[in-house]
Amino acid sequence: MLETLPETVKVFEVGPRDGLQNEPAQVPAGQKVLLIESLAAAGLRNIEITSFVSPKWIPQLADGLEVARALKLPPDVVTSALVPNMKGFESARQSGVKEIALFLSATESHSRKNINKGIDEALATLSEVAAAAKAERFLVRAYVSVVFVCPYEGRVDPDKVLRLLPPLLEMGVDEISLGDTVGGATPRQVIRLLKLASGQVGLSKLALHFHDTYGMAMANVVAGLDAGVTTFDASIGGLGGCPYAPGASGNLATEDLIYFLHESGIKTGVDMDKLVECGELAQRIVGKKLTGRYLQACLSARERKTQAKAESRG
Amino acid sequence: MLETLPETVKVFEVGPRDGLQNEPAQVPAGQKVLLIESLAAAGLRNIEITSFVSPKWIPQLADGLEVARALKLPPDVVTSALVPNMKGFESARQSGVKEIALFLSATESHSRKNINKGIDEALATLSEVAAAAKAERFLVRAYVSVVFVCPYEGRVDPDKVLRLLPPLLEMGVDEISLGDTVGGATPRQVIRLLKLASGQVGLSKLALHFHDTYGMAMANVVAGLDAGVTTFDASIGGLGGCPYAPGASGNLATEDLIYFLHESGIKTGVDMDKLVECGELAQRIVGKKLTGRYLQACLSARERKTQAKAESRG
Repeated sequence: MLETLPETVKVFEVGPRDGLQNEPAQVPAGQKVLLIESLAAAGLRNIEITSFVSPKWIPQLADGLEVARALKLPPDVVTSALVPNMKGFESARQSGVKEIALFLSATESHSRKNINKGIDEALATLSEVAAAAKAERFLVRAYVSVVFVCPYEGRVDPDKVLRLLPPLLEMGVDEISLGDTVGGATPRQVIRLLKLASGQVGLSKLALHFHDTYGMAMANVVAGLDAGVTTFDASIGGLGGCPYAPGASGNLATEDLIYFLHESGIKTGVDMDKLVECGELAQRIVGKKLTGRYLQACLSARERKTQAKAESRG
Repeated sequence: MLETLPETVKVFEVGPRDGLQNEPAQVPAGQKVLLIESLAAAGLRNIEITSFVSPKWIPQLADGLEVARALKLPPDVVTSALVPNMKGFESARQSGVKEIALFLSATESHSRKNINKGIDEALATLSEVAAAAKAERFLVRAYVSVVFVCPYEGRVDPDKVLRLLPPLLEMGVDEISLGDTVGGATPRQVIRLLKLASGQVGLSKLALHFHDTYGMAMANVVAGLDAGVTTFDASIGGLGGCPYAPGASGNLATEDLIYFLHESGIKTGVDMDKLVECGELAQRIVGKKLTGRYLQACLSARERKTQAKAESRG
């Protein structure tokens, strides 16, 4: 296990989109811009900055265009935005993002509940948007949700995921992010799906997106890395709850992931101290303590030092 | 990775000792008894119930003898108590526990800071207590602390751990629990240490004790399981903070561990629903929200259901 490791791993930051989307707080655009710019300054090079979805569905991200246009980022940062349809793509075109992200569910029930469309209909929309995006040289990412466990159908048969890969690849997507939306996966499930998927797609085209609802996210990352995946999604501070268990832990925290990678000798280009500052900023922005473990350990250690200093002075 | 798995895994519950010892709350003996009995009723068969250490050092567990004597448990539950010296062993003899647990640090600095003794002196005490305990047919467990990272010496050379194994085995200890006291280990370190240790001791004699300070506990369990270890320590609800980062996450949560094991097809004899009730009880006892992810996900899902019912009625 973990005998051969890649030299580098790509960390795809989803906090400003997937994170904020699942937080009740309404964050001002200026704060979002500050967070995204700080994440880039910490060394993250792939950041999902917003979603161009109807504000009726995600009011938290209604200011997506304003945020995107205000950003001042180094040229090598790949900004990404979630786009559900041609209307969303039109906003993406005006926003200056370099990548669009499409989404799809692995189960029919989740697809219908989530976007009120069946999978085939959703694929047709994706295909249309992907063609338009590729024609204008956007990078295209595709999320596949509920690939391990579905809140409506339970454990998901890998075949349901596998059958989506050929149409996505045909559309020319650059990366497919397999999402454990519910957070119910365990390492053996991850290994099994990847083994099957590797027959259809090079693992360098896959990303893994884990939620920590039951505390399995990091263990699943290890399984994915061991199987050969080199791109992982994460959210600053663990920003964003689980949509199916409000109050529970949400996304894998970026700091925890980076700690693991660096300790394993894998490069990410991320500065840990600056990343912790981003985590603090994210906490201030949403006005609550986030669930990231590395972040909380650092903050409590610092608090303790400050107290000790105050006591030694007093 | 995880291609062959053991049929069963032994989960060693440390919440009532290692957990409560690191919580500021002073819990009445009756509440401790209730928690331990509930843990046994949930199916846990190895429970560390207290510590017979001077109340000057650990006031939270000063009622150890009272707790031990009040317990009504099924006969197959192996109760364990931490014992630092012959005086502690005398209490253990009076308490009715079946196992005593000794402790030792892997680094000289941690040993001196923790118990004011060097490692060799500590080994001599352990040897005396172990001999007395074995003579009276107690099971003997030994904890080795800071086996991966030391708060005073940093990353720990595996040789420092390996050199402790022969003397411990010579004393006749039945189980050696290797502890990531700081919570800084990552899977590759775990695999490396186990590979080296397996040259000296059968892995069935080893247990692993992880803290989740940086979110690595479950990933490290996976690494340990993959390497052949079949005993893991855990704490109900994640009870107990990190002694070196107050406010940070502490022990691996028992529910998270059991969820992983059951989902991987490994038997533990534990009833998940009852275990979640134990987690709730532990929360009430210490008067705060615990960090266990499975627990919080269950509680928030239940809260949501109750709200939905109330709304549909209202």
